[in-house]
Amino acid sequence: MDRNSPIGVFDSGIGGLTVAREIIRQLPDEPLVYFGDTARLPYGSKSKETIIRYAKQVIHFLRTQDVKAIVIACNTASAYALEEIEKETDIPVIGVVRAGAHMAAEMSRSGKIGVIGTAGTIKSGIYGDTIRKYRPDAQVFGKACPLFVPLVEEGLWHDSVTEEIASRYVSELKGKFIDTLVMGCTHYPLIRSTLRKIMGDGVTLVNPAYETAVELKGMLMEQGLTCTRIPEEKYQFFVSDQAEEFTNFAVSILPEQVRETKKIDIEEF
Amino acid sequence: MDRNSPIGVFDSGIGGLTVAREIIRQLPDEPLVYFGDTARLPYGSKSKETIIRYAKQVIHFLRTQDVKAIVIACNTASAYALEEIEKETDIPVIGVVRAGAHMAAEMSRSGKIGVIGTAGTIKSGIYGDTIRKYRPDAQVFGKACPLFVPLVEEGLWHDSVTEEIASRYVSELKGKFIDTLVMGCTHYPLIRSTLRKIMGDGVTLVNPAYETAVELKGMLMEQGLTCTRIPEEKYQFFVSDQAEEFTNFAVSILPEQVRETKKIDIEEF
Repeated sequence: MDRNSPIGVFDSGIGGLTVAREIIRQLPDEPLVYFGDTARLPYGSKSKETIIRYAKQVIHFLRTQDVKAIVIACNTASAYALEEIEKETDIPVIGVVRAGAHMAAEMSRSGKIGVIGTAGTIKSGIYGDTIRKYRPDAQVFGKACPLFVPLVEEGLWHDSVTEEIASRYVSELKGKFIDTLVMGCTHYPLIRSTLRKIMGDGVTLVNPAYETAVELKGMLMEQGLTCTRIPEEKYQFFVSDQAEEFTNFAVSILPEQVRETKKIDIEEF
Repeated sequence: MDRNSPIGVFDSGIGGLTVAREIIRQLPDEPLVYFGDTARLPYGSKSKETIIRYAKQVIHFLRTQDVKAIVIACNTASAYALEEIEKETDIPVIGVVRAGAHMAAEMSRSGKIGVIGTAGTIKSGIYGDTIRKYRPDAQVFGKACPLFVPLVEEGLWHDSVTEEIASRYVSELKGKFIDTLVMGCTHYPLIRSTLRKIMGDGVTLVNPAYETAVELKGMLMEQGLTCTRIPEEKYQFFVSDQAEEFTNFAVSILPEQVRETKKIDIEEF
């Protein structure tokens, strides 16, 4: 495997850019290939079987880009398809769920942990299962928040409507006296300040995007896979639809300039 | 063509059930095959090219069900793909957009007409183009309302948040002094009472689902295609994902009992 190959990052659409942003911040010398499955998003409301099929196609595409490691930036895909993908490929695969679950298990004092995410992620129970691997006594309370993604995509990051909806969603979790809340969907860090306001300072907010970048950095160093020669095209972006809209959103999220996004037909892979 | 064959109704997901509901009400003796593309929804945020590709696959599937006519219940698909589909097939095709546009052109006194819909439908400008075919002097004002679909799917049909979001979306249209508003997305009739409250009694709300059923009825009678022998399985439902969730939603929308929904792999067509 070539240590100067890029890292492959995959998401259902634009949300994974919050993960790419953390990787770029923490690993500024690593080349990166991002794929957003914008023709088939969202993943959060679809079945396990469908998500596995989609994820396999994306992995086949990323392998054509000669990636040295794969980051599944989408919580739903990470919940439903990580194991299947690990079976299919011989390069390291990191999913946002494990990184986030690990940190939540470490940060919580009381062991009462809340998880918010899409319907798919919450239904899978993956965060609870994974948190309990690190901390068997943990009590994990999940809550699906289907309106957060459209609210974020509509730009209502700091808005009374988002605050009202967030209050309704998390009131149940507040009643459980959680001391840690996992933002289990890549869009949610963009409404972090609203969640912080509603949850109060006593609750630790865990951002799996941040923890994923930490885990990726450790893995690359341990396996001698850190890049030593940055290629000319350091960051590449691919989507299955709406390339221009993607570029516009990416520019607003990422610290680096995004010049262009290429559109591919993912069903060919 | 067999007059006792079913009518094919196609939508990106569950929204088209409001169209199926009108067809069942107005044509209670017609058999119907419904397909919801739940593995790839929503269509509203995707490109024309992608929607045409999806629509063609759905038409290929519906033809295997031996349908005598096709209703494109999805506004976005109707906006982007109706012409392409008409080129491909020799059976009658009715799209919700034309029926809704025709009625809006007839109902408006002032000729100032508002249209609300998904980003795709509004961006296509299809309602304005079609309304002006019937009424060249019409002034048509479009407004994309991307949050309405998720709000309806979250069940917030009568809710202060939906009212607040709706007020923001339509304030621009109220400023244009429209006297007619087209509900240009199949989900919107489900929040009709909220729209009625905000727009006031002076504005006529046009429901393209209703007008589509009227047009379909006229066409079947004119072409001698009305059913004379109802088959044993009168209503059939197919989706590309989440069959069980679809059945639950269909039961809440339709007047007839929905026994089962079959899942198919739409990418094979």
